[in-house]
Amino acid sequence: MNTASSIRLKNDLLLKALKKEKVDRPPVWMMRQAGRYLPGYVRLRKKYDFFTRVKTPELATEITLQPVEEVGVDAAIIFSDILVIPLAMGLDVTLEEGKGPFLPKTIKTQRDVEDLNTDNVEQHLDYVLKALTLTKKELNERIPLIGFAGAPWTIFCYMVEGQGSKTWEKAKQFAYTQPGLAQSLLQKITKITTSYLKSQIRAGADVVQLFDSWAGALSPEDFKILAQPYLIEIAEALREEAPVILFPKGCWYALPELSRGPAQGIGIDWSISPRLARELTGNAITLQGNFDPSKLLAPIPEIKKWVWQMIDGFGKQSYIANLGHGIMPNVPVDHARAFVDAVKEYQDTK
Amino acid sequence: MNTASSIRLKNDLLLKALKKEKVDRPPVWMMRQAGRYLPGYVRLRKKYDFFTRVKTPELATEITLQPVEEVGVDAAIIFSDILVIPLAMGLDVTLEEGKGPFLPKTIKTQRDVEDLNTDNVEQHLDYVLKALTLTKKELNERIPLIGFAGAPWTIFCYMVEGQGSKTWEKAKQFAYTQPGLAQSLLQKITKITTSYLKSQIRAGADVVQLFDSWAGALSPEDFKILAQPYLIEIAEALREEAPVILFPKGCWYALPELSRGPAQGIGIDWSISPRLARELTGNAITLQGNFDPSKLLAPIPEIKKWVWQMIDGFGKQSYIANLGHGIMPNVPVDHARAFVDAVKEYQDTK
Repeated sequence: MNTASSIRLKNDLLLKALKKEKVDRPPVWMMRQAGRYLPGYVRLRKKYDFFTRVKTPELATEITLQPVEEVGVDAAIIFSDILVIPLAMGLDVTLEEGKGPFLPKTIKTQRDVEDLNTDNVEQHLDYVLKALTLTKKELNERIPLIGFAGAPWTIFCYMVEGQGSKTWEKAKQFAYTQPGLAQSLLQKITKITTSYLKSQIRAGADVVQLFDSWAGALSPEDFKILAQPYLIEIAEALREEAPVILFPKGCWYALPELSRGPAQGIGIDWSISPRLARELTGNAITLQGNFDPSKLLAPIPEIKKWVWQMIDGFGKQSYIANLGHGIMPNVPVDHARAFVDAVKEYQDTK
Repeated sequence: MNTASSIRLKNDLLLKALKKEKVDRPPVWMMRQAGRYLPGYVRLRKKYDFFTRVKTPELATEITLQPVEEVGVDAAIIFSDILVIPLAMGLDVTLEEGKGPFLPKTIKTQRDVEDLNTDNVEQHLDYVLKALTLTKKELNERIPLIGFAGAPWTIFCYMVEGQGSKTWEKAKQFAYTQPGLAQSLLQKITKITTSYLKSQIRAGADVVQLFDSWAGALSPEDFKILAQPYLIEIAEALREEAPVILFPKGCWYALPELSRGPAQGIGIDWSISPRLARELTGNAITLQGNFDPSKLLAPIPEIKKWVWQMIDGFGKQSYIANLGHGIMPNVPVDHARAFVDAVKEYQDTK
């Protein structure tokens, strides 16, 4: 573990929670906290397109730090995108504002899979690593810095479909009709993602999170074949380097097994109650989540009440307060702040 | 119960399964079976727009019967749309092919809610009732006929948002900021939906299903406030009239409570294993589902194997084989037929 740096942190609540050490209150951060609901971000978005923001370390750092100053979160997460991995593997990715990502060339054949690059990730994604190093410096050990990547199944989805989907039926069809080739592709993504996350840790990430945003489209038995092995393989490979949080959205059924694996934390969404999530994991692992992001549109007193009830449900140890998915662009900044403040002011409501 | 007609049915497997009577094999039908994957439907779609198809009893009947002839399902479900209820309540609904529904006027204020009609549903939706009566006649007691409606929460979502949404954040914001008004609106929808389903049963429906397609966007605690009471109220009101199947998609957490309620069946999606669904319902209720519709894109031998495994998991009693969501437009007809045939040829694989 990267303890040399972490012990110097002024606020190390996140690291303590991931080590299951006792804390006075849970740490709090929000998925997509560096982004669209913040006026400072919206200003930058008008000047620079998405990949310019992602590929310019100074801009990525500025965006990463905004919620630290404006909302007071206990961890920064580097501003980047999960689709930098397909880019590094040699696929084009475009992103039109408000329209979602688009990959003009998708993966269909064995030749397509063979052609994908898995080497020299430090070179291909040096902009992310530079942004991490610069952010780490700017943070000046105030709070931990989180790095991240998309989980292999989720990256596979985009590589096969070329864009977002309600059903991910092309990705599944690929997996059902060419299971061996699907496995090769997932393994290649796993390989480069593992190197990438190791590089992120060397560049300054104190913790890394794997976003399996589309794992919930899979049945429990398909999850065990197409998603879980790769999540576990990556967490296992990083075991000695930094704590890993797995976020297989929608996969409440995987909690018992994942909680006994190599990761230090599991992120959950709001489709399961905090108490049941604790029951299913037997308090064996730190849990992160699971406030419905739409609830940030409720009146502030309701937000505070629901945050406290959420913490009552999880308990304040081995717990990281967060949303159950990314914050939405239309959330007022003072509502986001109310969420963070409610965690900081938590009092047992039972 | 509508037993006078049901005992005359040549194939009453669906009704037997819903009464938990012993069957030689489970009944099978598919959500959205009357529709876009069938060449006969595609031909009609070129000639008549969506609401012409829905509002012309002869066309709705023809479409309803297509999968009975072409795929061999054990039940027909009337071709219609859940958004006929907002229409009957006085809201405009348009549907552009491939773009999803659109309601130009959405519900925002108390006045909007007060203005909504809940009366004379037989008059407003006579086209559905006529289609049911005509279909019942054409079916000539071969198999049961299923009527349906959207569940109140799902209809609420469309009335507030005006169109489909990934997050249903406006609908939730309405419920969080105006909880009393949300309750009034849900009650009005419940009232007209109850009348509507009673009329459907009088017109010829042997069974009715309530589609709560967007209930899975809610947390378990919100489901208990915004969805569950209305599902139970409607099922309770129909208890003496016909069997009711509730389909709150994504709400595996509600299975224990719903299984002890007034409905005869619960539909489930593929986010929960058949065995766990049985465990959570303690075999107290008939379950319906839960084949991932994307699996119909797999090779036919795989489809057969997975269908048999699914039935192994549910057991063949008190069970209705179905998909976990609607069939997709790109499923080859022979794959749909393979699904149905696999159920009919089921053999224990254990």
